[in-house]
Amino acid sequence: MKKLLIAVLLAGTALAGQAVGQELQDRANALFDPLPESMPGAENDTPAEVALGQKLYFEKKLSVNGTQSCNSCHRLDNNLGGDDGNPVSPGAVKGKFGGRNAPTTINAGFHLAQFWDGRAADLEEQATGPILNPVEMGMPSGDKVVARLKDDADYRRAFDEVFGEAVSMENIARAIAAYERTLISEDRFDDYLNGDTAALNQQEKRGLKTFMDAGCAGCHNGALLGGNSYQKMGVVQAYENTEDKGRMEVTGKESDKYVFKVPSLRNVALTAPYFHDGAVATLEEAVRRMGSLQLGRQLGDDQVADITAFLGALSNKDSRDLAQR
Amino acid sequence: MKKLLIAVLLAGTALAGQAVGQELQDRANALFDPLPESMPGAENDTPAEVALGQKLYFEKKLSVNGTQSCNSCHRLDNNLGGDDGNPVSPGAVKGKFGGRNAPTTINAGFHLAQFWDGRAADLEEQATGPILNPVEMGMPSGDKVVARLKDDADYRRAFDEVFGEAVSMENIARAIAAYERTLISEDRFDDYLNGDTAALNQQEKRGLKTFMDAGCAGCHNGALLGGNSYQKMGVVQAYENTEDKGRMEVTGKESDKYVFKVPSLRNVALTAPYFHDGAVATLEEAVRRMGSLQLGRQLGDDQVADITAFLGALSNKDSRDLAQR
Repeated sequence: MKKLLIAVLLAGTALAGQAVGQELQDRANALFDPLPESMPGAENDTPAEVALGQKLYFEKKLSVNGTQSCNSCHRLDNNLGGDDGNPVSPGAVKGKFGGRNAPTTINAGFHLAQFWDGRAADLEEQATGPILNPVEMGMPSGDKVVARLKDDADYRRAFDEVFGEAVSMENIARAIAAYERTLISEDRFDDYLNGDTAALNQQEKRGLKTFMDAGCAGCHNGALLGGNSYQKMGVVQAYENTEDKGRMEVTGKESDKYVFKVPSLRNVALTAPYFHDGAVATLEEAVRRMGSLQLGRQLGDDQVADITAFLGALSNKDSRDLAQR
Repeated sequence: MKKLLIAVLLAGTALAGQAVGQELQDRANALFDPLPESMPGAENDTPAEVALGQKLYFEKKLSVNGTQSCNSCHRLDNNLGGDDGNPVSPGAVKGKFGGRNAPTTINAGFHLAQFWDGRAADLEEQATGPILNPVEMGMPSGDKVVARLKDDADYRRAFDEVFGEAVSMENIARAIAAYERTLISEDRFDDYLNGDTAALNQQEKRGLKTFMDAGCAGCHNGALLGGNSYQKMGVVQAYENTEDKGRMEVTGKESDKYVFKVPSLRNVALTAPYFHDGAVATLEEAVRRMGSLQLGRQLGDDQVADITAFLGALSNKDSRDLAQR
């Protein structure tokens, strides 16, 4: 009799646990979406265009002194999350550095716009920016970039085959963008959203719940957990770096001062350091500071640890796959 | 000596108070902007176009049975905040009601898009929606609207004078939009942002601080304290009305389920009841529920009272002025 009672109680506890689990999953599914299997625009990309884009992505001729490719700052070959691990990245010319933390190119085409300040509408518009940026790849002009590739018979032939036209900045951008549209990560959080409740461990589930309870999902929501809106850096507390005016530099509007694109949290555990200026070294510290800067919350150590654990479930299962596709 | 000491201490306290006051004002100026003096597009509006638009705004011929004008739901003549005080508004045809709480037309042209779900890009696109909506003004077609106004010699002459062309749905929309671009409110919060520290009383200042500390300004920021972004209704806690799918009905995207335009808080104390479905009767309750639904905060009674007091400072100083301009 006693055994039966215990069995009934245990079964009841298990059922209650299941109900709580279902509630958490329902809440998560209301706020987040699995990453789509293909990126907007990819339906028009051909395998040949993607292959050319991949070659260009790793092409150091695209920098003034032949030292840098797209992959130098947005690395796909090191099992990081598609960036270089630097606060700001060294440019091709010695001693010059980019002004902001290099964002990952993985999943980039899902964002509402490109760059931290959203100044490029899409991947095509973004792709040639760093090539011509004097503190990044430092090429003096589009004509010079085109001339370099035209000097190479392989490129002349490839552009002719893929686009039926000569090398131009426009089709360089198109090819790189086509390649970048294949860079979609796969992680355990999507397995969880798709119904595999065992895909997250207990701490990650607690972290997910805290992430939602604390209001983080107010900005970090949707398929990217971010990337779909702009927000002021320092909603509740002012952020200490007041040099970078953010989106105000694009729009000229005072109301866009310190406003940046909300970064996606996919692969965030792989892309330290953090924030637009790369000023924060660890994910724990980034979580803690976001709590106070954006939400006015002093998150406890356990909460920070749980959220950080949850964010780890957003890491691509094997980012080397992306470079080798 | 004792007197001097007290005087010094008092002066010190006053200075500290000033410093705290300055800090609050600086924080507010970083998050909010005074309403601009004119609306985007107003530079192309002529006084004659505005006058025609004003006449049309109050024109009951624009509804199927001659009972309703724009002003029936978006009232500018009753010293409310530019709405009708109903949860949802009765349509021209008896027994029919709009599906969502009528938003104010005051400051509407500053919003990033029109309607709760942003389905119209601008005032022109919005203006003819309710006229042809079967549960609102209920006109059966644009041709019928145009024919009615053409029956009136005054309108025939006015459209000819203003636009140099006959009445059309397009120029009806242009005129109404031109009038609506004059509907800009003036309130004490803008006086405060512009440097008049005495424009808010102590409770309103505490409310402003709590509003910023609690994270309300994450969505309700800029010149409108809202109106510049979309947000899910129920970020932290699910909202009980699950009938209205919000912006998903416009975009078809699952990720836009329960997403609405963040409403502006200008004139909010004048526009009860609240939320897209008008389900909440008082501003206090709206503040309390926003705290839990969007931020996961249980605001205390004093905090709710202070925030509500602050929101009162966003009321137009004299909304009757707007109808009589």
